[in-house]
Amino acid sequence: MRISELSRSSGVATATIKYYLREGLLHAGELTAATQAQYDDSHLDRLRLIRALLGPGRLSIAEIRGVLAAVDDPPESPNEMLGRASESLEPQTGGERSRSDAVGEEYRQQATAIVDELGWRVAANTKVLDDLAQALTAIDQAGLALIPGGVLAYARQLHGLAVAEVATVPMDSPEAAVRQAVLGTILIEPLLLALRRLALQDAAGRRFDGTDAPLA
Amino acid sequence: MRISELSRSSGVATATIKYYLREGLLHAGELTAATQAQYDDSHLDRLRLIRALLGPGRLSIAEIRGVLAAVDDPPESPNEMLGRASESLEPQTGGERSRSDAVGEEYRQQATAIVDELGWRVAANTKVLDDLAQALTAIDQAGLALIPGGVLAYARQLHGLAVAEVATVPMDSPEAAVRQAVLGTILIEPLLLALRRLALQDAAGRRFDGTDAPLA
Repeated sequence: MRISELSRSSGVATATIKYYLREGLLHAGELTAATQAQYDDSHLDRLRLIRALLGPGRLSIAEIRGVLAAVDDPPESPNEMLGRASESLEPQTGGERSRSDAVGEEYRQQATAIVDELGWRVAANTKVLDDLAQALTAIDQAGLALIPGGVLAYARQLHGLAVAEVATVPMDSPEAAVRQAVLGTILIEPLLLALRRLALQDAAGRRFDGTDAPLA
Repeated sequence: MRISELSRSSGVATATIKYYLREGLLHAGELTAATQAQYDDSHLDRLRLIRALLGPGRLSIAEIRGVLAAVDDPPESPNEMLGRASESLEPQTGGERSRSDAVGEEYRQQATAIVDELGWRVAANTKVLDDLAQALTAIDQAGLALIPGGVLAYARQLHGLAVAEVATVPMDSPEAAVRQAVLGTILIEPLLLALRRLALQDAAGRRFDGTDAPLA
């Protein structure tokens, strides 16, 4: 199909498609004349993935480039492909609040020790260990009291959910797998945090006001 | 004590203390002369709270003002005080990714219906319901497949943790309660998100590479 038809089928404006082509997010069509190219279903699939990552996923162009690189140059295993795609994502853990401080080696070791104790196998160089170290630093500096079982108690609950989440990833195509894995990683985060704050409201009401008193 | 001693005891520079006084975050000392004031332990307590909120908590001055207003003008119930303090916090759910879109009424109703189905009692006007509606919107727009049990499955896991978290809040003083409740709300978020991403790595490894293969 020509670019005008690709635009109609995908609902993406021609100018936007051209922008994706220039940015290398979308692979070139097959040239049929000096100024005309043919596009196919692979372009439609790719456009759908880009739109989902940019739209509901709110990834930056740089992040999308990283995700697509993992799809286009798939490593040996699907796990490695999903891992590379995920590592392209900026941490959204706590927004700006968790970004700027340097992480001490002590907390980096504590993060690794926690993962070891859980028996989790994660990429040795994953930047998520830095995010964990950062979170541990702030908790320690604030002198925050943790729940019984501490960090491990949180980890075990989240692992059960993670196993169920990974089971939702389809393996029909690298695009479909990356789409579900990357969007799942990102879009479930605000869901979890909103549900947690609501759960805290309910739990506080039950503890401090008794179950029958109306909340303010 | 004089401001110089308050500075020594708290480790906060005199200029910074004066800034907090000007901003109304710290209550004035008792004037003993035209240009001299006496400070006491209440000022030390307050400085510790401000430092924890600004430092590890990374709250903005505006957020701190809201939190301190709840401490200074405590409503009838501790639950209401903690609720007001928490409502002063900007949502950090997903950082910039969850900020800009308008939330449709349909998703707002869906959010309320979920909370109702869970039997949770939350403040009717809490802005966290908008955060939840926002998360539901993005998930729906992305066509993301959820785990079995859907949103309710996440909610039930988080509620168990929330009950344990609320139990850690001390009731010795409004400052101590707010400190633990507010910092707990904020500082556990990046912890949860980092642990979840690590759990996803482990779960993906187990599903896609078999339990014995090393991760890349």
